[in-house]
Amino acid sequence: MTTYAQMTTEELQSELASLQDAYNGFKAKGLSLNMARGKPASSQLDLSMPMLDIMTSTSDPHAADGSDLRNYGVLDGLPEAKELMASMLEDDPANVIVFGNSSLNIMYDTIARLWMFGTQGSTPWCKLDSVKFICPVPGYDRHFGVTQEFGIEMIPVPMNEDGPDMDAVEKLAAEDAAVKGIWCVPKYSNPGGVTYSDEVVRRLASMKTAAEDFRIMWDNAYTVHHLSADPAQQDQLLDIAKACAEAGTTERYYKFASTSKVTLPGAGIAAMAASPANIAEVKKRMGVQTIGHDKINQMRHVLFLKDAQGIAEHMAKHAAIIAPKFELVLSKLESGLAECGVGTWTKPRGGYFVSFDAAEGTAKRVVALAKEAGVTMTGAGATWPYKNDPQDSNIRIAPTLPPLEELDQALDVFVVCVKLAAVEKLLAA
Amino acid sequence: MTTYAQMTTEELQSELASLQDAYNGFKAKGLSLNMARGKPASSQLDLSMPMLDIMTSTSDPHAADGSDLRNYGVLDGLPEAKELMASMLEDDPANVIVFGNSSLNIMYDTIARLWMFGTQGSTPWCKLDSVKFICPVPGYDRHFGVTQEFGIEMIPVPMNEDGPDMDAVEKLAAEDAAVKGIWCVPKYSNPGGVTYSDEVVRRLASMKTAAEDFRIMWDNAYTVHHLSADPAQQDQLLDIAKACAEAGTTERYYKFASTSKVTLPGAGIAAMAASPANIAEVKKRMGVQTIGHDKINQMRHVLFLKDAQGIAEHMAKHAAIIAPKFELVLSKLESGLAECGVGTWTKPRGGYFVSFDAAEGTAKRVVALAKEAGVTMTGAGATWPYKNDPQDSNIRIAPTLPPLEELDQALDVFVVCVKLAAVEKLLAA
Repeated sequence: MTTYAQMTTEELQSELASLQDAYNGFKAKGLSLNMARGKPASSQLDLSMPMLDIMTSTSDPHAADGSDLRNYGVLDGLPEAKELMASMLEDDPANVIVFGNSSLNIMYDTIARLWMFGTQGSTPWCKLDSVKFICPVPGYDRHFGVTQEFGIEMIPVPMNEDGPDMDAVEKLAAEDAAVKGIWCVPKYSNPGGVTYSDEVVRRLASMKTAAEDFRIMWDNAYTVHHLSADPAQQDQLLDIAKACAEAGTTERYYKFASTSKVTLPGAGIAAMAASPANIAEVKKRMGVQTIGHDKINQMRHVLFLKDAQGIAEHMAKHAAIIAPKFELVLSKLESGLAECGVGTWTKPRGGYFVSFDAAEGTAKRVVALAKEAGVTMTGAGATWPYKNDPQDSNIRIAPTLPPLEELDQALDVFVVCVKLAAVEKLLAA
Repeated sequence: MTTYAQMTTEELQSELASLQDAYNGFKAKGLSLNMARGKPASSQLDLSMPMLDIMTSTSDPHAADGSDLRNYGVLDGLPEAKELMASMLEDDPANVIVFGNSSLNIMYDTIARLWMFGTQGSTPWCKLDSVKFICPVPGYDRHFGVTQEFGIEMIPVPMNEDGPDMDAVEKLAAEDAAVKGIWCVPKYSNPGGVTYSDEVVRRLASMKTAAEDFRIMWDNAYTVHHLSADPAQQDQLLDIAKACAEAGTTERYYKFASTSKVTLPGAGIAAMAASPANIAEVKKRMGVQTIGHDKINQMRHVLFLKDAQGIAEHMAKHAAIIAPKFELVLSKLESGLAECGVGTWTKPRGGYFVSFDAAEGTAKRVVALAKEAGVTMTGAGATWPYKNDPQDSNIRIAPTLPPLEELDQALDVFVVCVKLAAVEKLLAA
């Protein structure tokens, strides 16, 4: 078969007509489908409903150390909860703080503290003329939202198959003291599903930084979120804490994780890990901000998930639900797009997204076409700082929320929109 | 009987000897008692245990508007939860945002937003050379902790029986544009138990402020925390929102409340209310910080407390537990101290504290003596900015946490310590 690029104008016009027919057929169905949101499906949430039976009026409301879970106190999290989250963060419980339900909130507060107070004696970032952050692209829109909120200048750096382009990252970090950090989703990245190679992690840990207070925001959101329960099919990530310890850059990283996509996104628990000096600093400052987080909910998680093994078993149940959705995405893209030579996409082994690159200059058009046909996608450009994708090609596909049969329909619409936009573009050229 | 002030040196020396005997007797008992913390007693927490049975694996996990309580979303709180908290905040649910478990955290974040971003177009406070806050004293140490964290200069203003000294407040607010706000616990204040009069509320709302972005931090922590279920024995507070609306200063206030001392301090819900413009601003900024708070816990509170009537009935059960503790404090102070003429104290109708003024220059000594005899009090000076009580006289008594029989013992010790310190002081003069 001929790819679109090889087609004559007549062939393209005929293809356009047939695509428009198909597209109008979808529009006539009055669909309302959604592939925009990295949200667990209802069936995934059901997996954690037994957690709601764990703390009742007849439960012992005390932690092992005697703390009353119901009363004030315990700033940095129950010892039991620290241990549980330490297993996700691959760190020592002593280096862990357990917070409320949102790791985004922890990350925001971490940037806010750096902004208002600095760290380890450095100048607060709000006192500087210019603060810049390295943003691997495509990346997570809410990370970019936080840095933009503070007026931090975001510098995009391309993602390769083993993580961010480290030559570019090293150059930026070494040459400009205003470059204060980097956003990383190091495992099953959002949206590409990339896991950083050991070499990339080591280079991040050991690179020269002009700023003494350069910080790696290590958002390990998908650390246990494999699409297969078979360890051979799971990515492994080198721990940034270990790499920094080896490189002698112990204060460089903050690690974040949560149970949002393990138990319940609205009612999970989130945590951070960092060096002893950084953890001490955070505790001191957060002791002014709050008396402590919800210990009953921490205990629910401890009793429900138990430990790393319990988490792995629970995640296998998630994988059984979402892996078929990822398979469907890949097979629909392959069958619909490969032969016409339009688009490229990632094939992740975990996480929540497939990153799709449409024909250059067509992503916005694809998303608009899909919207008009009743299929909501993440906004084109959302994966770039300032929502500005200079190639206008990247689209994040989030297959977890819709049931399989809806996803199937939504992908059919999406594929037609991608092709339609590509043909329109070629005809306009 | 002769008061200490009227005693001769010989009489004081004899009194000293007898007090020392009594004190040593207490010390010999090896007590470990605590009147330091404004924490509910275990028996109060038990009142809310049925709340833990309300959301189980068989409950419908949806809000009335169809939102899945378990998934991401609903930034500003469930409509049901906004309605519940609006009843505590005496405001329209549309002007309410429901957060996580800590109103202190909301207040900190509110100051942080003003610090980093300003409000309604004003200059961010971090860009100013000097920011000052009015702090009625005695006041809540954690309020002072937040302002101190930001390097905001705290100006103490005396509390009268009807609220802060408004002549002093008006002068400070009118004359200095660096004075950006005031901390208020307007009902059953911490620690004095004072409720602001309507006139004080109106003067706060209508006073001239040199700063356009002057803000009243209206921490209505004890709004439903009466010591009696009889409305005639309960204080009434004029709503600051109404007063500001009448005065045309709609953006001046932020109101805060929580269920920390209604249900469970570690696992309650907290909320703020403000003008539509301020609420819109907060929502816009917090939308960068988080996706939303724990909606399952919000729903637990809705189903358990129901409405204003449900809250009142629940608070009557708290009152039945803590009112006898307050009565014991007052009767022990009266019987132990009145005739020797040492000390003055408040007689609150609600809240969590009694404010005690020892003989000038003796508060630190009293707290140290009590500590040595096994009775922990809130640190002397804690009720003042920078922990600096220039009279060294104020001590906060927190009677709720210990059981009655322990409180009884602790008060006996406290009374002897107050007298001992007073006699020592007179003899040293």
